[in-house]
Amino acid sequence: MKLVRFGPKGKEKPGLIDPQGKIRDLSDVVPDIAGAALTKKGLAKIAKANWKKLPVVSSRARIGSCVGGVGNFIAVGLNYADHAAETGAPIPSEPILFNKAPSCIQGPDDDVMLPKKSVKTDWEVELAIVIGERCRYVTKKDALSVVAGFCICNDVSERAYQIERGGQWMKGKGCETFGPLGPWLVTTDEIADVQKLGMWLDVNGVRMQTGSTKTMIFDVKTIVSYISEFMVLEPGDVITTGTPPGVGLGMKPPKFLKAGDTMALGIDGLGVQKQKVIAWK
Amino acid sequence: MKLVRFGPKGKEKPGLIDPQGKIRDLSDVVPDIAGAALTKKGLAKIAKANWKKLPVVSSRARIGSCVGGVGNFIAVGLNYADHAAETGAPIPSEPILFNKAPSCIQGPDDDVMLPKKSVKTDWEVELAIVIGERCRYVTKKDALSVVAGFCICNDVSERAYQIERGGQWMKGKGCETFGPLGPWLVTTDEIADVQKLGMWLDVNGVRMQTGSTKTMIFDVKTIVSYISEFMVLEPGDVITTGTPPGVGLGMKPPKFLKAGDTMALGIDGLGVQKQKVIAWK
Repeated sequence: MKLVRFGPKGKEKPGLIDPQGKIRDLSDVVPDIAGAALTKKGLAKIAKANWKKLPVVSSRARIGSCVGGVGNFIAVGLNYADHAAETGAPIPSEPILFNKAPSCIQGPDDDVMLPKKSVKTDWEVELAIVIGERCRYVTKKDALSVVAGFCICNDVSERAYQIERGGQWMKGKGCETFGPLGPWLVTTDEIADVQKLGMWLDVNGVRMQTGSTKTMIFDVKTIVSYISEFMVLEPGDVITTGTPPGVGLGMKPPKFLKAGDTMALGIDGLGVQKQKVIAWK
Repeated sequence: MKLVRFGPKGKEKPGLIDPQGKIRDLSDVVPDIAGAALTKKGLAKIAKANWKKLPVVSSRARIGSCVGGVGNFIAVGLNYADHAAETGAPIPSEPILFNKAPSCIQGPDDDVMLPKKSVKTDWEVELAIVIGERCRYVTKKDALSVVAGFCICNDVSERAYQIERGGQWMKGKGCETFGPLGPWLVTTDEIADVQKLGMWLDVNGVRMQTGSTKTMIFDVKTIVSYISEFMVLEPGDVITTGTPPGVGLGMKPPKFLKAGDTMALGIDGLGVQKQKVIAWK
């Protein structure tokens, strides 16, 4: 299934994409694409609903983040060997983890706003994992059984805040609008092999990132299992899994976003995001 | 006002402490001590309720975390000059920030569980700030106006996970049970000067930490203003503000928690927490 959330910011309703590509309103089936709706039981309830009888939503509706009520928004750093190389960092021996503020989450096509004094805002196309079951100490073997599905995340990053402001990366990762998620939460059954998905990102129509989830240093199963050693994961938690080469920070000279730029990014089977970059307001 | 949450884990109800020290049930006034109830409007509604007419809650009720639905659980590192010195770290030139997983939040007297293979679990008595208004780029002058109140946080930390597992601190900060909050959320009007609060922590009845919020490097106003430059803060977000000297890591030789230990900790005006340390289960 492809699940979506549509409507005004903060008032999104749950929906699914029907075989014709139309959004159907799931409001009478689940309260939101969040929490309990993401468990095996919740997804089974959605799967059982007769989509033909669900109301069709206007194609002009805004698309929100494909998951609501996110508790943990965790990111894996330097998880593609080529990207680690372009930033000058060594290949990590175990996953590097950091947090993005849940308050930065927004729809896939909402504007990305440069922070007030930002001069180093950068792009990162990433595969994000949406957790479906409360879990801890999950084995690699069982890791996919706690995953509800996958979506695209643009892990927008302010490099000066991330690297030059003292210690931990989270300062440059959770700024307002820095977490576009969606357009769809695609359930695991629709993805034949999550480690063979092509991914790309354009800035102003020029291809900047080209990659595949096959070059991850730590694969999806390893990441979920690893993180669950350090904290309890809950339905609706989101883990974004790192970016392939081609970010602005890695260029010579580095290149960063400015107001008026556009980004477009996609991952095989997970749809496309399009964002306009705007000045702080 | 002193606000509390009482009842079984995950099913806590809102309450307030009356002048006789009894808990009164606020369920008919607000749905939870969370989100909208923490705004100026929400707190005014609670203040207006006639506490004499609210049901008295059994004194045997479990006390939960004093705030529910926490989005961001942010911590400030090395914010007391003496504590920075005991860990061998330089005095930071701007606040060091990291995250604790919201899933680690629990009641003030719930057991603290050692992670599966932990050998370096440590204690940290801290003043925590509870945000009451959505905000960004708040000035120091206005910072207290977005704060709903304060509570105690034991920023339980696994030092090997925090320091020896690659890069970022959050691995050792958000383990299950590592975030006791409470017993009370004390609203700002009840605290005459938040920068003059004595604080202490005992392990097995022996005083380990003694300090005062007056020796913070970055005060409450500075911290709230600073963090709001990097992310949008929302009602129910919790910021824990660093610990004074006396943690296990700073001792020679270092001393860490083992199953069967007890912790007790308090801050002037904010109550006392008591926890038993248990093995992983």
